[in-house]
Amino acid sequence: MAKIPVGVLGATGMVGQQYLALLAGHPWFEVTYTAASPRSAGKKYKEAVAGRWHLARNYHPAVGELMVEDANDLTKAVAASRAGKCAFVFSALEMGKEETRALEDSYAAAGIPVISNASAHRWTEDVPVLIAEVNPDHTDIIRDQKQKRGWDKGFIAVKPNCSIQSYVTPLWALLKAGYEIKRVVVSTLQAVSGAGYPGVPSWDMIDNVVPFINGEEEKSELEPLKILGLISGGKIENATEPKISAHCNRVPVSDGHSACVSLEFGAKKPSIDEVKKIWTDFRSVPQELDLPSAPKRPIIIREEPDRPQPRKDRDSDKGMAVTVGRIRPCNVFDLRFVGLSHNTIRGAAGGGILNAELLKSKGFL
Amino acid sequence: MAKIPVGVLGATGMVGQQYLALLAGHPWFEVTYTAASPRSAGKKYKEAVAGRWHLARNYHPAVGELMVEDANDLTKAVAASRAGKCAFVFSALEMGKEETRALEDSYAAAGIPVISNASAHRWTEDVPVLIAEVNPDHTDIIRDQKQKRGWDKGFIAVKPNCSIQSYVTPLWALLKAGYEIKRVVVSTLQAVSGAGYPGVPSWDMIDNVVPFINGEEEKSELEPLKILGLISGGKIENATEPKISAHCNRVPVSDGHSACVSLEFGAKKPSIDEVKKIWTDFRSVPQELDLPSAPKRPIIIREEPDRPQPRKDRDSDKGMAVTVGRIRPCNVFDLRFVGLSHNTIRGAAGGGILNAELLKSKGFL
Amino acid sequence: MAKIPVGVLGATGMVGQQYLALLAGHPWFEVTYTAASPRSAGKKYKEAVAGRWHLARNYHPAVGELMVEDANDLTKAVAASRAGKCAFVFSALEMGKEETRALEDSYAAAGIPVISNASAHRWTEDVPVLIAEVNPDHTDIIRDQKQKRGWDKGFIAVKPNCSIQSYVTPLWALLKAGYEIKRVVVSTLQAVSGAGYPGVPSWDMIDNVVPFINGEEEKSELEPLKILGLISGGKIENATEPKISAHCNRVPVSDGHSACVSLEFGAKKPSIDEVKKIWTDFRSVPQELDLPSAPKRPIIIREEPDRPQPRKDRDSDKGMAVTVGRIRPCNVFDLRFVGLSHNTIRGAAGGGILNAELLKSKGFL
Amino acid sequence: MAKIPVGVLGATGMVGQQYLALLAGHPWFEVTYTAASPRSAGKKYKEAVAGRWHLARNYHPAVGELMVEDANDLTKAVAASRAGKCAFVFSALEMGKEETRALEDSYAAAGIPVISNASAHRWTEDVPVLIAEVNPDHTDIIRDQKQKRGWDKGFIAVKPNCSIQSYVTPLWALLKAGYEIKRVVVSTLQAVSGAGYPGVPSWDMIDNVVPFINGEEEKSELEPLKILGLISGGKIENATEPKISAHCNRVPVSDGHSACVSLEFGAKKPSIDEVKKIWTDFRSVPQELDLPSAPKRPIIIREEPDRPQPRKDRDSDKGMAVTVGRIRPCNVFDLRFVGLSHNTIRGAAGGGILNAELLKSKGFL
Repeated sequence: MAKIPVGVLGATGMVGQQYLALLAGHPWFEVTYTAASPRSAGKKYKEAVAGRWHLARNYHPAVGELMVEDANDLTKAVAASRAGKCAFVFSALEMGKEETRALEDSYAAAGIPVISNASAHRWTEDVPVLIAEVNPDHTDIIRDQKQKRGWDKGFIAVKPNCSIQSYVTPLWALLKAGYEIKRVVVSTLQAVSGAGYPGVPSWDMIDNVVPFINGEEEKSELEPLKILGLISGGKIENATEPKISAHCNRVPVSDGHSACVSLEFGAKKPSIDEVKKIWTDFRSVPQELDLPSAPKRPIIIREEPDRPQPRKDRDSDKGMAVTVGRIRPCNVFDLRFVGLSHNTIRGAAGGGILNAELLKSKGFL
Repeated sequence: MAKIPVGVLGATGMVGQQYLALLAGHPWFEVTYTAASPRSAGKKYKEAVAGRWHLARNYHPAVGELMVEDANDLTKAVAASRAGKCAFVFSALEMGKEETRALEDSYAAAGIPVISNASAHRWTEDVPVLIAEVNPDHTDIIRDQKQKRGWDKGFIAVKPNCSIQSYVTPLWALLKAGYEIKRVVVSTLQAVSGAGYPGVPSWDMIDNVVPFINGEEEKSELEPLKILGLISGGKIENATEPKISAHCNRVPVSDGHSACVSLEFGAKKPSIDEVKKIWTDFRSVPQELDLPSAPKRPIIIREEPDRPQPRKDRDSDKGMAVTVGRIRPCNVFDLRFVGLSHNTIRGAAGGGILNAELLKSKGFL
Repeated sequence: MAKIPVGVLGATGMVGQQYLALLAGHPWFEVTYTAASPRSAGKKYKEAVAGRWHLARNYHPAVGELMVEDANDLTKAVAASRAGKCAFVFSALEMGKEETRALEDSYAAAGIPVISNASAHRWTEDVPVLIAEVNPDHTDIIRDQKQKRGWDKGFIAVKPNCSIQSYVTPLWALLKAGYEIKRVVVSTLQAVSGAGYPGVPSWDMIDNVVPFINGEEEKSELEPLKILGLISGGKIENATEPKISAHCNRVPVSDGHSACVSLEFGAKKPSIDEVKKIWTDFRSVPQELDLPSAPKRPIIIREEPDRPQPRKDRDSDKGMAVTVGRIRPCNVFDLRFVGLSHNTIRGAAGGGILNAELLKSKGFL
Repeated sequence: MAKIPVGVLGATGMVGQQYLALLAGHPWFEVTYTAASPRSAGKKYKEAVAGRWHLARNYHPAVGELMVEDANDLTKAVAASRAGKCAFVFSALEMGKEETRALEDSYAAAGIPVISNASAHRWTEDVPVLIAEVNPDHTDIIRDQKQKRGWDKGFIAVKPNCSIQSYVTPLWALLKAGYEIKRVVVSTLQAVSGAGYPGVPSWDMIDNVVPFINGEEEKSELEPLKILGLISGGKIENATEPKISAHCNRVPVSDGHSACVSLEFGAKKPSIDEVKKIWTDFRSVPQELDLPSAPKRPIIIREEPDRPQPRKDRDSDKGMAVTVGRIRPCNVFDLRFVGLSHNTIRGAAGGGILNAELLKSKGFL
């Protein structure tokens, strides 16, 4: 089958690069359009990233020859779309929130679906915030979104913040198994790649941790509630539980966010063995559909006392699995564990690609 | 006034070295006796640590000329004590628990008080676990200890684990101000020096965090309860609150343990401003007695959003203050903050020296 | 074709683990015998490495079920060999030099070829020190070795120290192209995995470099001379040039040794462009034989001004290529460059496997 | 005696902050004027650096209350100078070279001496590049400089690049003792603070080294020749020897530049013991004058095989000494050693302050 031609907006940034690295050799999608800031526009992609390609894995050679367009210049994208070179775009834009929102809207309005990594639209009530294993049914809101806005082919779907990927899938697996979760206290130890490039100065990361990431705790507490919400009356009604308290720390790790989680169940409380069984057995729509980027097992349990660890576990199942360990009772609540996921793969580009695969399978793309 | 001659057991290890570095130039104490494992015994101290002195700060030149004795050989210590060369010892022994306990007992029984950094005696019911600003009155148990055991001059006093120093003093200041604390969830980010030397392999700390430290969570949860306990009937009755749940992580930091704390008050809840005022104003016995190693302010508040940080704050007030920041409401409990203390100074050798100063001031030494 | 059954001695150490990770799925070799210290002997491999498997990549599940034997117990290896379970062994022994030499000799004498990573036999005059692209013809000495010692099937072939892999192949390519090299000054920046596990304490690697690695400078200066030597009269006559001066540093990098090289040619001096062409075009016997572990291009040139970098370049071509950059004239000699190779793959287990593939192709195994 | 009021240009940057930290409590100088970019101008210093003070050591409280002026606005500096608030300035400007040169000229022309850390004037033939222990007599050129330019009180004196401090003083001590040095190959391992703030992204420093620092090798090779030059005909004639070849690497170290040095003497060659004696005995003008910031011993030898190390040795003698170790013969040239100095103290602000002390003692300020 012919591959679907796709575009990447913000193609030269940290997440944009991760998209191009992951899409090199993708069985369904082929990058045929790249756009970035005016500074990069007009150069070949390989020239635009010369001396600032940050990853060990490389982009597809054909992408290196693509001309980078100005992401603000919609006419270029529309022309590409009409020419069959851009069926939809992955957005890894790194502008301000208002600007990003307006720009993503304009692409969608012009008939180009936007699968976004940006935070701009996460709180738009008819835009789904998708973790493919957790709320695949939230894609249904796209019909309302299109209708309300009068969009024909275009729409917007986003993915959540990278900090929550290490604990939301495990929480969801427990909820799905019938266990209410009332309260969660989580401390994250987050990798520097989450801040993009140049991101965190090395002066602040050598022999140090920084106990603060701007805006991250709010996202970590609130975004799960939208993801766990229900579609009702053309919008997503946020869940009201669990209450989450997040402490977000930046640590000297290149990739891989860890989360130390304490949680309180409702009246019905699973045993530790039941928790392990639920997580081990957990499969969801991406696994059922056998999507190319779906991890075989969304949640991998490590039984060693000192795992998961970022350098050793972040790449599990192509960087798409959540690795969980230290599953034990909590001295204050009911359950404690440590979760880990690759923040620029599962938590960013890989998560976006999996969402696109889901949307394609469901006929939205 | 003539300085008090003191000994250091385990003088060649990481904490032993920190003792010698901090005691160089101490106004009250002078190291005149060193003991370590049989491997070091019989060498001059400077020879015993040649090529394995780990600190930037140096030991006193006179200590370099001392002969290192075998710590297991009590006769040497007794002879030194009789010769006026060892009024008491700091124990930084790194043997097994049983061995350490027996050895510390034998020193005390022989009339040599032991101010210990080791964990062996922390759960002995008539041995005080002292944080000088928190439970200075627990020194009273020493009288019972001596009487019960028939010890004349010798006794044992210990300090708690390094992991708890970043949060117990702030908690105590709130308790002292009349606010009950019911529950605490704490995640620590601990420096590698806490594991001694060679300690944590660099292979495990480069681009990585390890979410486990053997035995550390139990200590972090239980030791505060003894410290917050009351003397009753010749033993220390542990407090029953707060319930503490600890997640202990090892991070690539040389010195300085951080703690992300969420806590629940009892019915009476202070405002954030009250909390700040309580911590800013907190002073205790070491400050009243103006002990040489006491920090001027036991708790230092940093108002910047991204502090405290280990490399920038661990050395506050000679490494003896606890630095606190990010004081804010908790989304699940009542209060959140981040605490930081220097684990081998405040949390080990410096804390031990301050305890000795307290005990000297109170007439126990 | 049926795979050749092989053994790994020292299978639980850092390099032994790397062997098992790389041999999982190897097209020619299959690990059917593992041996280690008495401490591990008698356990299944998966039990022996439980909680101390250090790599992200895993061993083959079938290896996990193998019983680990005592490497000192030759009878076990001989029995396995007779049972068709151990055609030859990879030695990643981590004992003392004398012990290792004696043990490797005893395996060879018993008819089991030894492809060794250990340094014990590097200066034995009839034992080849192989870098498959540099001196593949040194395998010829094996015939002399067998004859002299009266060994029938067994023999010993070793690989050089990991520190030299980043510069010896580039030097050889220039020599092969007809350019004499008189003198070399090299400073290495070496990863911690080179020291095995636990290896370098993290206390010494956080915010630090250590300008010394025991024995490493001697190896870095002398081993290239044997590799560049000639077989003559049943032994390898060392080359007398180039003179090499090495400064070896340990840096906080997990994997990947860098080398900053300044070199002086003889009278005939290539231009920078010629150097680049020589390196780009360089191919050798492993490439001609298309050996499974051979890199397609043994030397990869990066033109960016700031490459090669360990984290970004060490895994080039399965970690088997040498990446070279910053090729420029030297202000004191003729040529400067930076070389980089993966020390536990190209510089250890991967290099050993490639040597075995070469020996197999040449009929020695 | 009343302290001399001084100004700091570029007061909010990494080196500017280091100036303010080191000048807090200086016995001769008192900061009474601060200037920075227009972004900071008009704020109190404490406001200008709120949330971006990078050092553990703090500035003087009185400096926090100073209004930051626009460094480009000379009228402010002149007014301060006339008001007795700015006898001279330390320049830690971080603008472009041309701009910096013009601005420093304008300060000097206006009668305000400039002690500069910037590279702009290092190759101006009548501007001395001072290392106080190496070429204190180069201050004599200031008379020519003033005369030629018609400057009355103002003048410009600069300090060299931070990368050369670890080896130029040791080289000079050998030259002064009568040993010619013909050639030097040096590899530096440089700390991230050398790049200012934000400087090197942490993404590039975690588990990595970067074998390139823009412009640094040229400075490392050429600046020593000016420092070792002679005043002749109103300008400094550069030395022609030694020829230096530098490889400059960025490593994950916060502070402290290391240098691995191989050097070739002329016909007369000292023994290793003579070298050690020369370095141990080396004293120069700053020591003779007992300048407040002068290290007691400019060169400290560590005999341990694995020193100097940045974290353990950079702070020797207030961060002003050069620590040298691994003194041994070279396999290619004559002598090898490792030098280390604190790049933002000895190599930047501390070096500038020492230069000002020298100039004050000699009557230039």
